[in-house]
Amino acid sequence: MKIAVLAGDGIGPEIVAQAVRVLNALKTDGLGIELEYGLIGGCAVDATGEPYPDATHRLTSQADAVLLGAVGGPQYDNLPRQQRPERGLLAIRKKLNLFANLRPAMLYPELANASSLKYDVVAGLDIMIVRELTGDIYFGEPRGIETRDGERVGFNTMIYSESEIRRIAHVAFQAAVKRQGKLCSVDKMNVLECTQLWRDVVTEVAKEYPQVILSHMLVDNAAMQLVRNPKQFDVMVTGNMFGDILSDEASMLTGSIGMLPSASLDENNKGLYEPIHGSAPDIAGKDIANPLATILSVAMMLRYTFNQEEMARRIENAVKKVLAAGYRTKDIDEAGMKSVGTKAMGDMVLAML
Amino acid sequence: MKIAVLAGDGIGPEIVAQAVRVLNALKTDGLGIELEYGLIGGCAVDATGEPYPDATHRLTSQADAVLLGAVGGPQYDNLPRQQRPERGLLAIRKKLNLFANLRPAMLYPELANASSLKYDVVAGLDIMIVRELTGDIYFGEPRGIETRDGERVGFNTMIYSESEIRRIAHVAFQAAVKRQGKLCSVDKMNVLECTQLWRDVVTEVAKEYPQVILSHMLVDNAAMQLVRNPKQFDVMVTGNMFGDILSDEASMLTGSIGMLPSASLDENNKGLYEPIHGSAPDIAGKDIANPLATILSVAMMLRYTFNQEEMARRIENAVKKVLAAGYRTKDIDEAGMKSVGTKAMGDMVLAML
Ligand SMILES: CC(C)[C@H](C(=O)O)[C@@H](O)C(=O)O
Ligand SMILES: CC(C)[C@H](C(=O)O)[C@@H](O)C(=O)O
Repeated sequence: MKIAVLAGDGIGPEIVAQAVRVLNALKTDGLGIELEYGLIGGCAVDATGEPYPDATHRLTSQADAVLLGAVGGPQYDNLPRQQRPERGLLAIRKKLNLFANLRPAMLYPELANASSLKYDVVAGLDIMIVRELTGDIYFGEPRGIETRDGERVGFNTMIYSESEIRRIAHVAFQAAVKRQGKLCSVDKMNVLECTQLWRDVVTEVAKEYPQVILSHMLVDNAAMQLVRNPKQFDVMVTGNMFGDILSDEASMLTGSIGMLPSASLDENNKGLYEPIHGSAPDIAGKDIANPLATILSVAMMLRYTFNQEEMARRIENAVKKVLAAGYRTKDIDEAGMKSVGTKAMGDMVLAML
Repeated sequence: MKIAVLAGDGIGPEIVAQAVRVLNALKTDGLGIELEYGLIGGCAVDATGEPYPDATHRLTSQADAVLLGAVGGPQYDNLPRQQRPERGLLAIRKKLNLFANLRPAMLYPELANASSLKYDVVAGLDIMIVRELTGDIYFGEPRGIETRDGERVGFNTMIYSESEIRRIAHVAFQAAVKRQGKLCSVDKMNVLECTQLWRDVVTEVAKEYPQVILSHMLVDNAAMQLVRNPKQFDVMVTGNMFGDILSDEASMLTGSIGMLPSASLDENNKGLYEPIHGSAPDIAGKDIANPLATILSVAMMLRYTFNQEEMARRIENAVKKVLAAGYRTKDIDEAGMKSVGTKAMGDMVLAML
């Protein structure tokens, strides 16, 4: 099995290096994998003029899974729109048809203090957000900025087809079946026809999953309920735009976004795996970034693409042990804990593996 | 000066009744106002078949300000789209050109316990969200659900013109000038051209307000920062859709949405004033709803439409005194406080006025 490794920009290379060490350890233990390296984001623009070069696309097309670090940095902020690092992300998602973005927001008991919310409100938090990733207003046409009646007008198109909604709904229902059997679908059906269709189709798909309790929530209310009582949620499913907002809000409830992995899957469970945090250019190259979200992304890769639940658990348990033993990178550090850098944190995970 | 009073559905009539008592008390003290009553929302559908009947529009068109309770209830959930109570809200905003929605998210020190966030994170919170209210994907065309290539497709159009962005930007900068001089504009310029124009125009308008410090933030990051460290914000400005989500998220940071008023203004400061909470049909008619958000909406009316800053402060101070004296409706009640009903809470505010 082939894994394309795209380290990207900023802290990307450092955190990916630690995740690769974990992969190599599992390889030694018998996991049949081969790693190949490619460019994405700012470093790809520097090298080729494109944030997602053809060579990278050839590599990722042939791979079974992609491990990504992070993209972006201030030196790329003034590039023309089509060359911005995040275009690389949008391109790889669309070209590989990675329509199902799984974003767990889970709080490790050891890190509960890091949250800005009260302990009781978030202790034990474990939400899975399923975000549609290749449709919606992100990719809808027409779009642009034009002059109309003598003034500029900016416009985008929110659009979903029945089949796009249906396939992401299935992913979400299946996730709910494996978890606590509760799915909350988020829309804005009282204003947007697009999301009225969303609600209708999700409701139709629900008939195939009688064991799942489906509820619907308006996006404004969902943004409130995540703050008020996030533990009411098990799985949430929503479109690309609302999912962007709500999944970031949900992840910040934990207070430790350096811990959160994500998966973006296609129809055949080929997947892109990446931490949810950014490229943190301010701390790049200093050996202080937290590699755990990237290491946990490898666990998701083993679970969803390679069907190696046991190995996935091994990684997740190793991370739990490292936390229980008191090791902390700077972003999650607290008085009385053992501060470690990026590489030393990788060492600890390997030791616990 | 004429005030159109639209009590609406659910708890609307009860909470508006208390706000009207406050208005009448000020009238006795010399405020030259006249109240006229009309229907909106579900009760208007019941009476006329329309959520915003022509008669109501005639009334509100001739009024200087509108006081609104809340709309909606389960008995209206299965009405056709055009008759749903919230259509009444959208119609009054659009027809009266109420493009500037001001939503303060402010935490009363006495109620800090109600928040799900840690005390230090929210104590002293005082954010003003300025949300554009008559444009964006709420009203953009084309929109609908159609069959294309044999399947249903739902679509909406996000659209802003330069002049729409400019006028809401001015409102936000002016609000910032009167407050702490900080404005954060929220967009998704890395994906949406519509919001790229938003950022460009807000940046242009900023030149007229050198005393205001302008920053820009992506909407996903804003959703996170509101949770992580909401006190970094003074005034925030954003479009209709993002504003819907972020203003609800921000209001829930306080934990007491029964306390939060709002204003929706046109170009001449004619305004619609309403609590941000809903019609709470489950507690309607029980004399337990919190009337303070509606009473504080009257304070906003005096400030923005009638330019009576002193009277606005009188109301706000009366509310503060009532809280300091320990009176609480059920939604904000705590052990050791004096529980009161809707009407009794109105009595207390009148007594402190
Ligand atoms: C970088 C940006 C284009 C991207 C998105 O909006 O999808 C990011 O916010 C994310 O959530 O992965
Ligand atoms: C009821 C609904 C149409 C409305 C909106 O989305 O604007 C409400 O959520 C609000 O924020 O006033």
